[in-house]
Amino acid sequence: MHVLVIGAAGMVGRKLVEKIAAEEGVLGSAIDHLWLVDMVTPSVPPALEGVATAAAMDLSAPESAAKLAALRPDLIFHLAAIVSGEAEADFDKGYLVNLDGTRALFEAIRLEGQKEPYCPRVVFASSVAVFGAPFPDKIGDEFFTTPLTSYGTQKAISELLLSDYSRRGFLDGIGIRLPTICIRPGTPNKAASGFFSNILREPLAGQEAVLPVDEDVRHWFASPRSAVGFFVHAARLDLSQVGPRRNLTMPGLSALVGEEIEALRRVAGEKAVRLIRREHDPVIAGIVAGWPTNFDAKRAAALGFTAETSFDDIIRIHIDDELGGKV
Amino acid sequence: MHVLVIGAAGMVGRKLVEKIAAEEGVLGSAIDHLWLVDMVTPSVPPALEGVATAAAMDLSAPESAAKLAALRPDLIFHLAAIVSGEAEADFDKGYLVNLDGTRALFEAIRLEGQKEPYCPRVVFASSVAVFGAPFPDKIGDEFFTTPLTSYGTQKAISELLLSDYSRRGFLDGIGIRLPTICIRPGTPNKAASGFFSNILREPLAGQEAVLPVDEDVRHWFASPRSAVGFFVHAARLDLSQVGPRRNLTMPGLSALVGEEIEALRRVAGEKAVRLIRREHDPVIAGIVAGWPTNFDAKRAAALGFTAETSFDDIIRIHIDDELGGKV
Repeated sequence: MHVLVIGAAGMVGRKLVEKIAAEEGVLGSAIDHLWLVDMVTPSVPPALEGVATAAAMDLSAPESAAKLAALRPDLIFHLAAIVSGEAEADFDKGYLVNLDGTRALFEAIRLEGQKEPYCPRVVFASSVAVFGAPFPDKIGDEFFTTPLTSYGTQKAISELLLSDYSRRGFLDGIGIRLPTICIRPGTPNKAASGFFSNILREPLAGQEAVLPVDEDVRHWFASPRSAVGFFVHAARLDLSQVGPRRNLTMPGLSALVGEEIEALRRVAGEKAVRLIRREHDPVIAGIVAGWPTNFDAKRAAALGFTAETSFDDIIRIHIDDELGGKV
Repeated sequence: MHVLVIGAAGMVGRKLVEKIAAEEGVLGSAIDHLWLVDMVTPSVPPALEGVATAAAMDLSAPESAAKLAALRPDLIFHLAAIVSGEAEADFDKGYLVNLDGTRALFEAIRLEGQKEPYCPRVVFASSVAVFGAPFPDKIGDEFFTTPLTSYGTQKAISELLLSDYSRRGFLDGIGIRLPTICIRPGTPNKAASGFFSNILREPLAGQEAVLPVDEDVRHWFASPRSAVGFFVHAARLDLSQVGPRRNLTMPGLSALVGEEIEALRRVAGEKAVRLIRREHDPVIAGIVAGWPTNFDAKRAAALGFTAETSFDDIIRIHIDDELGGKV
């Protein structure tokens, strides 16, 4: 099997590649070749040397998509995107990368299929940002997509293209709407959602973190390990079960910030909790108030997608995967 | 006020222009100039001579959108589209006109606004084709858009762009999801939905018509007069009431084919009904089975949009507007 990962240098992309390196056959078949592309050259895990090729490539540049489709991978993970904040700040860049880049990829696959039959599995990273407030208490699988950001708009449009290209038989697509990934490894960033991870990751490492919202803020989470699990499961899934509605809200954990903190106390003690400094930020609180808080992701669950059911699990996964198993 | 109608030679476009010609001030302000464009040069009603300019223009051709935006109309009706059947048969053409043409228009408006502040009202003709089966008994305003045609996909994507461009303040858009328009004037055409009109229009004119489906087929209708009413109302509406969810399912009449026929009997007698020839067409029956049958269009109704509540009314409107008031 020939596999392409677009966005392989991003956080989830890297972890997906590590998973492929660590578990032979995790994608269902032996891998003949793996192409890894991103704006910067992705790193190749030692276990994949000789099997993987890494390259820097801008998907939105002319010819990029055609070059990738000409490789005729059997399976394509498309995880490349300009993040929400940047897509809001730079209207042109967000549409160029998140919409035009994605459409160029789908078009290149269609045109490649006109030369010789070709219909790869395409696993597309979407987001719950396709939804916009106001919401019901639990957002069901049939709730409409009325995004309140350009990023969410670009993801919702890409979802529609993915479904139409799949329906027409040009590709075999599945869209994965990711929850907020928590605990994000690395250092605190300025994304409005960063604090959900910061208030756990930093105290676990003995560092202070700022909580800019109240403890009764509710949000929708899954671990990086679950995110990788979604993509791997989507790659292997029998899509005849899915039908024409190709975009799925992934399962996740709906939890309060206060529940995050309680879990931190149970796993790492009061000392860790004391490292959280409350510093209310009305701008961040306002942004977060427009985000979805809970879903009833029935379809994805029925198709075998799974995520964590407690913040204790989310914290333990971080400790296992990022901190060598101990705080 | 400067007004632009794109798609002014189409059935609804022509009737909209006739309405503007017949009722001074119908759009809320006096019209200083009216531009009418379409693939073929639209006709100008005598009452609008000196006020209206008509031109043939392909919105998807380079520079077309920029030329239109440079006119800086205060109000733009965008009704131009490749119809459903053609967009399905010609994938490239459908995306070029229905998606790229619409996006080019919105982009040209945004870029025009970068030269000097500009934020026109844009009334966009969408369609219930944004929905795809299976459906609940009544489709609510928050039901998701999972189109089963490329046409529906292109309309759903255009809706998302309309909302995002409105949210960012580049234009002041409202999307009007039209029911199936009935009774369409003219001659029978090969559109799968044509028979809904044919079985009334042809017998009213003493001609035979073919009914290819069963009488218990349910569908969602509004008259051409209502369609014009939607666009006129949308042009004048205070959109601060609408908020960021800019696309509205219009009110309509949910009725059975059998109810169409009963209304024809009441209005035009048994002789007219006898002109309907039953000739089952499994292909058309199959296509129609995937179409929505009923909506609960609460939001549009609350905003003052109205449509017919009986097929008797729909038939009488046809007799008044197309047959000089008599059968």
